[in-house]
Amino acid sequence: MISVEAARARILAGLVPVAAESVALSAAHGRVLAAPVLARLSAPPANVSAMDGYAVRAAEARAGADLRVTGEAPAGRPFTGVVGPGEAVRIFTGSVVPPGADAVLIQENATAAGGRVRVNEAVAAGRYIRRAGQDFQAGEEVLAAGRRLSVRDIGLAAAAGYPWLSVRRRPRLAILCTGDEIALPGEPLPPGGIANANGAMLAAFIAARGGEPLLLPAIPDEAAAVAQAVEAARGADMLVITGGASVGAHDVVQEGLGRRGFSLAFWKIAMRPGKPLIFGRAGEMPVLGLPGNPVSAYVCARLFLEGALAALSGSPPAPPRVETAILGAALKANDEREDYLRAGLAWDGQGWVATPLPLQDSAMLRGLAGAGALIRRAPRAAAAAPGDRVEILRLDER
Amino acid sequence: MISVEAARARILAGLVPVAAESVALSAAHGRVLAAPVLARLSAPPANVSAMDGYAVRAAEARAGADLRVTGEAPAGRPFTGVVGPGEAVRIFTGSVVPPGADAVLIQENATAAGGRVRVNEAVAAGRYIRRAGQDFQAGEEVLAAGRRLSVRDIGLAAAAGYPWLSVRRRPRLAILCTGDEIALPGEPLPPGGIANANGAMLAAFIAARGGEPLLLPAIPDEAAAVAQAVEAARGADMLVITGGASVGAHDVVQEGLGRRGFSLAFWKIAMRPGKPLIFGRAGEMPVLGLPGNPVSAYVCARLFLEGALAALSGSPPAPPRVETAILGAALKANDEREDYLRAGLAWDGQGWVATPLPLQDSAMLRGLAGAGALIRRAPRAAAAAPGDRVEILRLDER
Repeated sequence: MISVEAARARILAGLVPVAAESVALSAAHGRVLAAPVLARLSAPPANVSAMDGYAVRAAEARAGADLRVTGEAPAGRPFTGVVGPGEAVRIFTGSVVPPGADAVLIQENATAAGGRVRVNEAVAAGRYIRRAGQDFQAGEEVLAAGRRLSVRDIGLAAAAGYPWLSVRRRPRLAILCTGDEIALPGEPLPPGGIANANGAMLAAFIAARGGEPLLLPAIPDEAAAVAQAVEAARGADMLVITGGASVGAHDVVQEGLGRRGFSLAFWKIAMRPGKPLIFGRAGEMPVLGLPGNPVSAYVCARLFLEGALAALSGSPPAPPRVETAILGAALKANDEREDYLRAGLAWDGQGWVATPLPLQDSAMLRGLAGAGALIRRAPRAAAAAPGDRVEILRLDER
Repeated sequence: MISVEAARARILAGLVPVAAESVALSAAHGRVLAAPVLARLSAPPANVSAMDGYAVRAAEARAGADLRVTGEAPAGRPFTGVVGPGEAVRIFTGSVVPPGADAVLIQENATAAGGRVRVNEAVAAGRYIRRAGQDFQAGEEVLAAGRRLSVRDIGLAAAAGYPWLSVRRRPRLAILCTGDEIALPGEPLPPGGIANANGAMLAAFIAARGGEPLLLPAIPDEAAAVAQAVEAARGADMLVITGGASVGAHDVVQEGLGRRGFSLAFWKIAMRPGKPLIFGRAGEMPVLGLPGNPVSAYVCARLFLEGALAALSGSPPAPPRVETAILGAALKANDEREDYLRAGLAWDGQGWVATPLPLQDSAMLRGLAGAGALIRRAPRAAAAAPGDRVEILRLDER
């Protein structure tokens, strides 16, 4: 058995980012930049007003001063003249500050009448002006290669003048669910059968992380069927298999993979749920074998598949984000396997309280679906009492 | 000026969920259930083994007992006989426990040879058996109407036997960006112009929350153009407008809306960034007017549009989740407006530290894109020192 960390490192070591493609900005949310975004323009492009008011010369704009309004400059229609001595120009949020002016008198501090404006409160030079390039300068890197684009990043790339972005194409991940007992959801169950939760769940998991899932038809526990499915998956950036990776006599995945020249990297990890895990390559194609129990499959997907998807997408594969929370119920000492307990998560006004579910069975999807976090326990962790700090991984919509 | 809370309540009060549609399970991630999911089968459907081993009669399975192995039951191929006295059946994870047996002797505690198995450690009744219906019973509600489906929920719905789900259709939100100064990203800028960040950003924002954005062509600051665009948006579940909602002479959105029988609910909120906000209806269609500055637009979208999208989707519109963090830099006392400061967010090993960015200009998208949280400050909040607890809203990929 190897540690979770060692397993993750070995999975990630051999993964190479997929190629880039150009996508419209509107389709780029959640995608990973293949090249840095260098601003094509400065923001703001010129000195602009941050408020509605009057462009003035600060040296003159003392309280009580009376200025002649020589024109106006709505946003997008700059004033073409110069603000000379004794003059002011009506200006609005986002308007270019005309030459000659060096401050904005906000309208709340001004009294306008008959083509003139009176200064009710003195203005300092530079006040209420957004300097050209204050947010970014043309040519500056505003977004780095490898960044997964947030909604805010989309806004930033737009502001930097980009209608298209160069992003990694979506990694294509084939999903193969194995087991004599599994049936497609909604199909009649075979004797002793269950509805296959892993296929749809992993497809959603992969799509939610920017991948393109290819759900292969589920197959029975037969090495020949496994070998055939590996052929069907050729061209995928990774093959994800569920089930059949354990030590039972009916575990045929490894045998089937073996027929396709599979080189095994490892297959047992010191963790719970999810000890049986396969990683290796069938020819060039990386193959990740997850446990068949859906809770184990999900937890292993969080720990290993998420990072693999990031690496294939050209995004730095950080380990799952671990935070701490207050333990809500006692925990016994842990054995030699790293443990991931499904837990409720509640905000008590000051911090998050994580309370392990009473039943931790790795086939119980309902508990997993209702959980808010996984409590992570190190191998050989000592017993813990309510109120102790524990490490958690949050469970979210993804 | 009304409070953020009052504004949110008034926006949400009049919103009605859109109609339902049937979608394939594989397309249901992130969608909102229109009807509860009642399990179509029990999970597990029968008593099944949680481990590889032997189905035994616990009363006989004392240490040292020697049992006759009368058959095997791979997962999905149940043993058709009964486990009689002195007998055991080879069994695997997920196999149905045959009649007569009431416990599983795990193979780690067994020695098998010549058609017999020796018990090395006594087994208690019920041990390593997943009872039928332990996760859920047929007919039970496993997912409630109004729930936004997570990846784990997709797995649960699959396990409950659902190939299709009844979800709310995606609310269609038209986006209208106004301003003489804005140009589509990548297009030549007009004099004094800027690239329009709001359109692409809000489209991504809406899509990331399960909505269907319809990005209308941007329009100049002309009431007639606004009135025309409102017509173009008819049939949308909401119209979102950016810009033109302020108090300047060139704010024509309200005038244009007025020509389409707009009834205004309110238009000023005691918050920063984002004071000028419009909400009302043009005929039946709800209209939300966001500030034109992209940072203000994003913050107001988080506070008001997110809830509106939830309400339109039939999901209970909870207020944005507020947590607390440790303040990383001093803050002055706040004025009468609720403040949302862009802040860096860093985990210091024990908790999150939120440090406000030095420049809080509401046109600075780069700062927003790089921020990890918004620090929320109540109106009239007292000055705060580093180390104090502050309220935050996390900023994530969405």
